[in-house]
Amino acid sequence: MIVVMSTTRTPEQQAAVITRIQDLGLRAQEISGVERSVIAVLGQVYPELKDELSTLDGVEEVLRVSKPYKLSSREVRPNDTVVELSHGVRIGGGRPVVMAGPCSIETEEQLWAAARGVKEAGAHILRGGAFKPRSSPYAFQGLGVPGLKLLRQCGDEFGMPVITELLSVRDVAAVAEYSDILQIGARNMQNFVLLEEAGKTGKPVLLKRALSGTIEEWLLASEYILNQGNPNVILCERGIRTFETATRNTLDLNAIALVKRLSHLPVISDPSHGTGKWYLVRPMAMASIAVGADGLIIEVHPNPDQALSDGAQSLTPANFAELMREGSALAASIGRPFADVPVAVA
Amino acid sequence: MIVVMSTTRTPEQQAAVITRIQDLGLRAQEISGVERSVIAVLGQVYPELKDELSTLDGVEEVLRVSKPYKLSSREVRPNDTVVELSHGVRIGGGRPVVMAGPCSIETEEQLWAAARGVKEAGAHILRGGAFKPRSSPYAFQGLGVPGLKLLRQCGDEFGMPVITELLSVRDVAAVAEYSDILQIGARNMQNFVLLEEAGKTGKPVLLKRALSGTIEEWLLASEYILNQGNPNVILCERGIRTFETATRNTLDLNAIALVKRLSHLPVISDPSHGTGKWYLVRPMAMASIAVGADGLIIEVHPNPDQALSDGAQSLTPANFAELMREGSALAASIGRPFADVPVAVA
Amino acid sequence: MIVVMSTTRTPEQQAAVITRIQDLGLRAQEISGVERSVIAVLGQVYPELKDELSTLDGVEEVLRVSKPYKLSSREVRPNDTVVELSHGVRIGGGRPVVMAGPCSIETEEQLWAAARGVKEAGAHILRGGAFKPRSSPYAFQGLGVPGLKLLRQCGDEFGMPVITELLSVRDVAAVAEYSDILQIGARNMQNFVLLEEAGKTGKPVLLKRALSGTIEEWLLASEYILNQGNPNVILCERGIRTFETATRNTLDLNAIALVKRLSHLPVISDPSHGTGKWYLVRPMAMASIAVGADGLIIEVHPNPDQALSDGAQSLTPANFAELMREGSALAASIGRPFADVPVAVA
Amino acid sequence: MIVVMSTTRTPEQQAAVITRIQDLGLRAQEISGVERSVIAVLGQVYPELKDELSTLDGVEEVLRVSKPYKLSSREVRPNDTVVELSHGVRIGGGRPVVMAGPCSIETEEQLWAAARGVKEAGAHILRGGAFKPRSSPYAFQGLGVPGLKLLRQCGDEFGMPVITELLSVRDVAAVAEYSDILQIGARNMQNFVLLEEAGKTGKPVLLKRALSGTIEEWLLASEYILNQGNPNVILCERGIRTFETATRNTLDLNAIALVKRLSHLPVISDPSHGTGKWYLVRPMAMASIAVGADGLIIEVHPNPDQALSDGAQSLTPANFAELMREGSALAASIGRPFADVPVAVA
Repeated sequence: MIVVMSTTRTPEQQAAVITRIQDLGLRAQEISGVERSVIAVLGQVYPELKDELSTLDGVEEVLRVSKPYKLSSREVRPNDTVVELSHGVRIGGGRPVVMAGPCSIETEEQLWAAARGVKEAGAHILRGGAFKPRSSPYAFQGLGVPGLKLLRQCGDEFGMPVITELLSVRDVAAVAEYSDILQIGARNMQNFVLLEEAGKTGKPVLLKRALSGTIEEWLLASEYILNQGNPNVILCERGIRTFETATRNTLDLNAIALVKRLSHLPVISDPSHGTGKWYLVRPMAMASIAVGADGLIIEVHPNPDQALSDGAQSLTPANFAELMREGSALAASIGRPFADVPVAVA
Repeated sequence: MIVVMSTTRTPEQQAAVITRIQDLGLRAQEISGVERSVIAVLGQVYPELKDELSTLDGVEEVLRVSKPYKLSSREVRPNDTVVELSHGVRIGGGRPVVMAGPCSIETEEQLWAAARGVKEAGAHILRGGAFKPRSSPYAFQGLGVPGLKLLRQCGDEFGMPVITELLSVRDVAAVAEYSDILQIGARNMQNFVLLEEAGKTGKPVLLKRALSGTIEEWLLASEYILNQGNPNVILCERGIRTFETATRNTLDLNAIALVKRLSHLPVISDPSHGTGKWYLVRPMAMASIAVGADGLIIEVHPNPDQALSDGAQSLTPANFAELMREGSALAASIGRPFADVPVAVA
Repeated sequence: MIVVMSTTRTPEQQAAVITRIQDLGLRAQEISGVERSVIAVLGQVYPELKDELSTLDGVEEVLRVSKPYKLSSREVRPNDTVVELSHGVRIGGGRPVVMAGPCSIETEEQLWAAARGVKEAGAHILRGGAFKPRSSPYAFQGLGVPGLKLLRQCGDEFGMPVITELLSVRDVAAVAEYSDILQIGARNMQNFVLLEEAGKTGKPVLLKRALSGTIEEWLLASEYILNQGNPNVILCERGIRTFETATRNTLDLNAIALVKRLSHLPVISDPSHGTGKWYLVRPMAMASIAVGADGLIIEVHPNPDQALSDGAQSLTPANFAELMREGSALAASIGRPFADVPVAVA
Repeated sequence: MIVVMSTTRTPEQQAAVITRIQDLGLRAQEISGVERSVIAVLGQVYPELKDELSTLDGVEEVLRVSKPYKLSSREVRPNDTVVELSHGVRIGGGRPVVMAGPCSIETEEQLWAAARGVKEAGAHILRGGAFKPRSSPYAFQGLGVPGLKLLRQCGDEFGMPVITELLSVRDVAAVAEYSDILQIGARNMQNFVLLEEAGKTGKPVLLKRALSGTIEEWLLASEYILNQGNPNVILCERGIRTFETATRNTLDLNAIALVKRLSHLPVISDPSHGTGKWYLVRPMAMASIAVGADGLIIEVHPNPDQALSDGAQSLTPANFAELMREGSALAASIGRPFADVPVAVA
């Protein structure tokens, strides 16, 4: 940690800062520049120290030198994490996977139609929401546990691992019972109690980036899960909130490229939420593969114009099939072919 | 709802949109402009309809005309909501109140020292965190239930209602037992399960705006509480996330002025989190009063440079007393004097 | 245009709005919904009308139905614009081009070394800055006209059209004399006088999106050029400003995908400024091609660690050559191969 | 400057960084922490050095310790700058001034009506736009030089200094001839050539913050003017662009409080553009005074519903008079009464 002193600081203030550092059992090293003098703090510093030192008289600013995240860092673990699922599906390590299915599970017919479409097109994992976070309390909130059961049954029938969103600590057991992957949505990225409880299940957790989550906060949030001894974390970029309103969100592919460098965790891309418009899903999915994402998660609905949620960003099975054809060709051309498709048991 | 048709739409597409609207039991009214034709949808529309219609062929865009929030709207209830607390403290209706105390409850000594300082300076309500949401799992996480008990005891001793943050549905009963107001933090503004559970307690709920929460989303979030039959919602602006990094957040006073117009709910301002720098707290507190806020919430610590959280934005009791002197003079001068201070029972 | 009336509006207020619309020679059509009544304005509306009507008593909001941009819209001109340059280079229409070279022209040696590198790697157009916009007045400001002459000479020698930034109306003649394309930087996207003067030269103009420019504002800015009778406009996405600081900017590929749909103008991508980090340039260049960009503009410096500007985001010639190998393979695999490389005359 | 080395750097890389620093005539001081080693760079560093060093092998990050702005800094000049105008009006130093008038000068009648209203209400300076920057080329662009002449005449008649916007270097002489203050709009904050030319006139320059301008960039932009030997710079906060669309912009009062601390330059507030809604202008004006602004700039139009620009955010003379009554009472109550009003000569 580097303490930058004000140009108007007195020798007494400088001495007091040094004393404070030493009282904490740390070492202080003074460095006098042309314009400013700074004090380097050496030893086992802790995050709160930044705030503590910045309030002392004569201090201009305190700069952090170490990264605050540890377990998710590639400096700590250089090799890619690979998350193993049923049916031989693996996430991370070079070959992208595709998760697809409806935003909300609405009926058995709807779910089966979507599953059949995505399975035939080559998707690896079936997605579907049973607990839906909705901005408005007056909107469709999902089928709940009956939806979970449908999803499990459908995944088994089509031979696909399944993923669904976990909204609350009170549903951890139910979601962990029925789903192969627990999805933490963007609104809950910093719902730390939920992260810990999800981590404790030992099940793979897909952690979406918050609408206003910095990359650093996102990696720190992943540590709440990793810290429970659960290494199976998958990150998911799903668009950030910016000033631009022509797209629902701004899918941030820069973040995917950077996180692949900073962290060993797999990172997948969600162009459906990232753009909010079905006609932008295919081009942004292609770009996601090209930038190095470990997979995609795509909303597919047999009848988007009748969807109970997110219809505007859902693909028809036919459009999804086209995305898969183009996407797998692109993936192969850059030496990162799509992962093998699990063979259906049914 | 207004459906804007593409300039390249065909008559068949236009007819199909109208049929769809009518099939839903709604009326469609065609309006042909110079450049575009639009279709007004009349009847009891629902939020999902926007997405549904926007995916139909030939549709350019769907515009909402009604506001999605209802119970929180001043159109529905023109008069200010006033939240009544113990010790005769009331929030809303014209006279600002001040909530103050430490970010985290650390020790009995620390809490009592802070409480004594803020009470003497004229604060109305005692704040203090027992469950702390921290970006890093390696930071101080709060004392938990023992902290709640200390807070209750301290509030009773100094004759002040107390407020503390509720982080998880599993702590609802405990927090509701010990605290007069349940605070929902910015990271949980869209933790809808938590909002509903907090609402069910019937206790006053202070709902902070999310870092990237729009005003519309904030009011919709309040409806998750109001919808439980709990009218005692207090809104709190605490700074939004923007590109500017010279301040920790950007306290958005525009939002306070606008929400006072759109909604009947009281709105208070949190200049401590809003700016992140103790020396900006006083000027932004003054501005908050001038803009029409119904109160302030301020972090005060007997020794900010030793605080376990948020030291950089905490005031000393002396600085807080100065803020109260200047703030109450300002409030009086604009005809909105601070609320009367409850008389301590001890 | 749609005028949304307040739920508390009086019949007199409604009548006054209608009278006002009719007084302007427009038609007003009333539509009464369940919650609100709206008034459609029919006829040749103008942009200012929105502001005018929104101040009338009883008006809640005024919604625009038509798009404010015209000449740049694909609705007006469905086919892709193709900009023709010397040496047979064409921008737009399907085959991506690559512009590359140093951020600033520093010396003859530096420029020739960069040009040789990018030419050998297959770049189509040579870039280099002579007038540099710098946040600080104390930073290197470019060589000015002598830099322009070097660029012209170098482009001629290596058989490449050249592009350079135009900073001020006073330099229009000089830049138009020496450069094949006039680049308008992000900071000048809404320097409307500069746009008009650049447009009048009839030369191709590359218009970068502002750091906080919406897609709509960007297209409107292009109309200041197009409106001078100059159809040769190339759009360039170069990263927007968001809350994320781990990358210098957030390169917004969503915008490229959307603008390709909204407009017939070619759109290229600038991953160098878009990310600010040389090691993110290659992945984001790949993603840009995959998303459908009409080209790339890349900073290449023979010695990035000695560059007088933007060294951190500049590629070495070796790294650029790798980008070109991978990029052209990707472009070919998606059926949009890089444009043919002009044969050097020297 | 502090060079943070990667945890994976080799001793050779560390040595190479030190050699590079020494080759530049600077001193390097190594500091070895528990997790990382850093190198402090001592001597007369320059801005480009950050980029140069950050590209060297083994370097993780380079942190700046000094502030990049100099002439505008309070560290360099502790006392408030006071800008002296005709009619004894002074900006800065404690007593707020109010600039008011129409967004655009439309006709003699309109300007005189506005001027009469704002003069009677106690405004100090008359504002009015003759050159208008408009997002759309199809919107009203201002009267140009005839507008400047009207403004001068009107200011003289009512005994008020005048301010108007300068859009282009080609209009510097004309604007400087007729106006007391040259206004640089938000879109031109980083039009560096314009800043320099405005600076050279020696006339007071009001510099608005860009929609996405950081506080640091804003102060650096002011240095382009100050650096011409012109000390008469007035800063103006006019709202930044954020994700929130319920207000046109987000007026950032935090920035005013912070800039008053960082810089000696006067800072005024523009709640008209800052909010975009006339009914938010008064509360945000009040808050601006309370936060410590050196003045206000307010749009006033005799008939806002017929304004050729910005009608939605313009006050009527009656509303402005109310703002002045409340604002001057507030200013007086906090010990910073409005500046004395110049006595009209006519």
